Amino acid sequence: MALTGVLRPGHVQIRVLDLNESVTFYRDVLGLEETGRDATGRVYLKAWDERDHHSIILRQADQAGMDFFAFKVDSVATMDKLEADLKAYGLNTSRIPAGDLLETGERLRFEIPSGHQIELYAHKKFVGSDLGQKDPSPYSPKFDKGIAPMRFDHALLYGPNVDKVLEIFTQVLGFHLAEYVTLPDTDIKGALWLCCSNKAHDIAFVVHPEPGKLHHVSFYMESIDRVFRAADIMAANNIKVDIGPTRHGITRGGTIYAWDPSGNRFETYSGGNTTYPDLPPIAWSWEGLGEGGGLDVAHRKLHETFLTVVT
Amino acid sequence: MALTGVLRPGHVQIRVLDLNESVTFYRDVLGLEETGRDATGRVYLKAWDERDHHSIILRQADQAGMDFFAFKVDSVATMDKLEADLKAYGLNTSRIPAGDLLETGERLRFEIPSGHQIELYAHKKFVGSDLGQKDPSPYSPKFDKGIAPMRFDHALLYGPNVDKVLEIFTQVLGFHLAEYVTLPDTDIKGALWLCCSNKAHDIAFVVHPEPGKLHHVSFYMESIDRVFRAADIMAANNIKVDIGPTRHGITRGGTIYAWDPSGNRFETYSGGNTTYPDLPPIAWSWEGLGEGGGLDVAHRKLHETFLTVVT
Amino acid sequence: MALTGVLRPGHVQIRVLDLNESVTFYRDVLGLEETGRDATGRVYLKAWDERDHHSIILRQADQAGMDFFAFKVDSVATMDKLEADLKAYGLNTSRIPAGDLLETGERLRFEIPSGHQIELYAHKKFVGSDLGQKDPSPYSPKFDKGIAPMRFDHALLYGPNVDKVLEIFTQVLGFHLAEYVTLPDTDIKGALWLCCSNKAHDIAFVVHPEPGKLHHVSFYMESIDRVFRAADIMAANNIKVDIGPTRHGITRGGTIYAWDPSGNRFETYSGGNTTYPDLPPIAWSWEGLGEGGGLDVAHRKLHETFLTVVT
Amino acid sequence: MALTGVLRPGHVQIRVLDLNESVTFYRDVLGLEETGRDATGRVYLKAWDERDHHSIILRQADQAGMDFFAFKVDSVATMDKLEADLKAYGLNTSRIPAGDLLETGERLRFEIPSGHQIELYAHKKFVGSDLGQKDPSPYSPKFDKGIAPMRFDHALLYGPNVDKVLEIFTQVLGFHLAEYVTLPDTDIKGALWLCCSNKAHDIAFVVHPEPGKLHHVSFYMESIDRVFRAADIMAANNIKVDIGPTRHGITRGGTIYAWDPSGNRFETYSGGNTTYPDLPPIAWSWEGLGEGGGLDVAHRKLHETFLTVVT
Repeated sequence: MALTGVLRPGHVQIRVLDLNESVTFYRDVLGLEETGRDATGRVYLKAWDERDHHSIILRQADQAGMDFFAFKVDSVATMDKLEADLKAYGLNTSRIPAGDLLETGERLRFEIPSGHQIELYAHKKFVGSDLGQKDPSPYSPKFDKGIAPMRFDHALLYGPNVDKVLEIFTQVLGFHLAEYVTLPDTDIKGALWLCCSNKAHDIAFVVHPEPGKLHHVSFYMESIDRVFRAADIMAANNIKVDIGPTRHGITRGGTIYAWDPSGNRFETYSGGNTTYPDLPPIAWSWEGLGEGGGLDVAHRKLHETFLTVVT
Repeated sequence: MALTGVLRPGHVQIRVLDLNESVTFYRDVLGLEETGRDATGRVYLKAWDERDHHSIILRQADQAGMDFFAFKVDSVATMDKLEADLKAYGLNTSRIPAGDLLETGERLRFEIPSGHQIELYAHKKFVGSDLGQKDPSPYSPKFDKGIAPMRFDHALLYGPNVDKVLEIFTQVLGFHLAEYVTLPDTDIKGALWLCCSNKAHDIAFVVHPEPGKLHHVSFYMESIDRVFRAADIMAANNIKVDIGPTRHGITRGGTIYAWDPSGNRFETYSGGNTTYPDLPPIAWSWEGLGEGGGLDVAHRKLHETFLTVVT
Repeated sequence: MALTGVLRPGHVQIRVLDLNESVTFYRDVLGLEETGRDATGRVYLKAWDERDHHSIILRQADQAGMDFFAFKVDSVATMDKLEADLKAYGLNTSRIPAGDLLETGERLRFEIPSGHQIELYAHKKFVGSDLGQKDPSPYSPKFDKGIAPMRFDHALLYGPNVDKVLEIFTQVLGFHLAEYVTLPDTDIKGALWLCCSNKAHDIAFVVHPEPGKLHHVSFYMESIDRVFRAADIMAANNIKVDIGPTRHGITRGGTIYAWDPSGNRFETYSGGNTTYPDLPPIAWSWEGLGEGGGLDVAHRKLHETFLTVVT
Repeated sequence: MALTGVLRPGHVQIRVLDLNESVTFYRDVLGLEETGRDATGRVYLKAWDERDHHSIILRQADQAGMDFFAFKVDSVATMDKLEADLKAYGLNTSRIPAGDLLETGERLRFEIPSGHQIELYAHKKFVGSDLGQKDPSPYSPKFDKGIAPMRFDHALLYGPNVDKVLEIFTQVLGFHLAEYVTLPDTDIKGALWLCCSNKAHDIAFVVHPEPGKLHHVSFYMESIDRVFRAADIMAANNIKVDIGPTRHGITRGGTIYAWDPSGNRFETYSGGNTTYPDLPPIAWSWEGLGEGGGLDVAHRKLHETFLTVVT
């Protein structure tokens, strides 16, 4: 009842080509806080307004992209129940023992038909924010260290079978569909914005022939002003921008798409619709995605990179 | 699972002393859209980003204040289940037939120990927003008509027995406690910020000897800039301001408290924490509420009106 | 002494291909106020924070572009003196009688070596703004009618001989050079940002083979938030955008470049440096203009349209 | 012609009761950069967007307040001419040799009839900003160190004989009067906002029986968002606020008034009207200053401290 079950995006493991360069980017330019490194060399980071131990995990690899995307659930009981439901739906699941990720409990992992590894977990160490939990201060210098997003907000993933992905997220995991795009001259939903909360979205998918691809990992900014400040800091650090600053018609959020040093796209995102499961989803045509400003309100076109550049 | 059960504040019925004057205020100064009037003379309004038929109902009366506060739930089944749970807890409930409020289904009503009438309902006519549901436009002139909040966001209510209120909202209705204030030199929670979503709060309570009182009804603004614009429009229309523009340390939202023509306090509010049920609530001491900036970050004092002026 | 002589951009006459369509754009989308029409059919408009009778004049013509750009000077004596100085420099000048433009006194006109017609005038009817001159209100609904810039801010003009233009503006008219761009691999100033005040610029030039061309007419917005709102309104009205929202490294202002219905580029601009004549100008290399973000901080490239599309 | 003669506020020497505590405040909380200390122990600071060596000078003293306020002029010739003009008006002037203030040329000093020491100077070392003068970066971490105003913007001074002050500034120094307040039930101008540029004001005066008093020193912020951020940082550092965040009806700027550790009031200010000498000044009645929102748009009252607390 109310907000239960699957709560929020909890972490994402990103593959980077040069760990040191990437840590410099995510810590000093993006402004995340490094919270740990594990025996396998992975680096853990969190944004200033996040209270759990980490949300971003960087792993050195030969190819950029995303290893897995995890949601925090409200309890082990929920994790157990959802495992049964996912199996009943026909998915294979596995368990990854507590401690595999620093300060994180047991995780349930399953591959969805788009080829992505999704995880659920119930426990991660609460580390709090700089503001504190008792009579918190309204300000910390961490608000202004680098781009300084408030949180890891969502990811957009590319892969096949998004019809099945929609079924799994809405019928098994309890998400609601906030917005979608239909493919040209069809009623087929080719892009999905899915929510487990009343945020604009918690995860999104676009249909794509190659499975398991990452379009972008998104970080939340307080305001349009802060999105503009992010552009300034990107410029000062020679971070290449893909699209923006602009507004997405879809979700109505402010946005910049840019690339991390490994070529993984990230987003600095602000605002966005408040969504609820009882409201009908907003429907975008393929023309709406492009000329209708679904992707880019200011320029109203379907940037070629949107459909072609993923990791 | 995810966001289910109680979804959001759905409507509030406000008592006003002069209906015409109040309609002028809520429609032309605050900038809500009038969506109907019923046979009893009540006036129904909605904000531009709301999609159900109404969120604010004005009723002419001899005394200002709030008649009832309603939450939308996801289904009649939820309403039935929660009725049973509320009865099991020991509350009396009643049903108000569909059609009593325009375009609204049957409502479940119960009085909570603070003396407030709370309602649950599952159905209200979806009327949509000016932007539309298919390839929506990013702008409507309604965004800028008067103060033009996006939505009715929450209310702060004053009354006795907030310990019981906390039990009902968290144990029966599934809310989580996001923040609270303890009374001077005690551990007693005297003020509560409660959420059924991951907004900063959906309803709040402050302990008060007189039951059933309204502290304020809050309207959501997109940004601090829009809160400042609200102050300008209040000034241009001679609306008396209580507190702000400032930030609440509690919820970290931008705020102005002001009074409608009947003396009901309203708030123009922006930002605010994103909350989740697994995170421990933020604890404010009585000093934190005042000198700690819980009420007013800029002035860090407990404004006398905060505790004394209610309707 | 202090701010004297040439005070500010006073008006610009823009050629439009379809007057009715253009009036609809400038009045209803851009949000200027129509203040008059003259016997020749020209339409006069002003922005909400301007106090003289008009700043924008639309003239129907077969070809888009700018007829003339005028500065207000502090007195007829200044106009007379500057006429003598301009003649001494070697320019031809002419006088246009009072009343040729509605509510405007006699104008001094001269062609500068870039091929642009520049005017000086000392008198135009003070009509005030909606806020009034005595105990002004802080808000008028005109602030939010369409894009609603505060004022006509500057223009960027393209033509040859910008070295001579620099001489005339700095040595004869008293402007200071705030920023400039040197041509590739040279010390030749190929682009100039010139100020008669301490604004970021009052007029700008880029060297171009064809004389008398208009790059854009710029309108001032209060904030980055308002620049973003302008993009939303452009989208809602299907106004084609060239560049932005972004920041210019040059002047550090927020910007959108877009096109009016005749293909004249206009800008919605915010912020920008405060400049003074005693400070050395900021120097941009050709690479700085492009990859250095002089034109576009977010994208750091020299958009092809910047150099090629003028009217 | 254009912007010549008196250019801008150049520096202000502030008396502080505890130098170390004050340096900590001005450098670490307000976020100015310390640029030097002289043999007498004075500490020099500048804001991040200022390019001359310093704008704020702190001097340890037994009593808070302002020693002198200086304007930069465009040349020694202007200084010489204005000295003659000031003498012709009837004021005594003196010269302070180059080097008395670090990196500063000879200064002309005179006492105006309000009892304040005003200075003019033509030379101060250009030190530039972090952004540089060639292909400047759009961002430096100094933008976000503490409150981080862009510049020292103006001061408001209290003293007698503001009618004479008005004469000197407008008739001798070339300023224009942008706005004024008349005393209750009179046409006597009791408060003046004066400009040598087209900023909202460069110096302001309020009539007051005691001569030579400082009401506040003002620092310029880019936006309302940044004024709100200043309030957060004030709170985090326990800086006591007087008024705001609010808007002044007078100048239409965003504002917070607060106190430095010695009790000198300072302001974080944003926006504000663009003014010109040919436009009639905006006239405020005494009621307009108070109930009309001239001082405080949100609260529309004449805060008692505004008239009584000066240093």
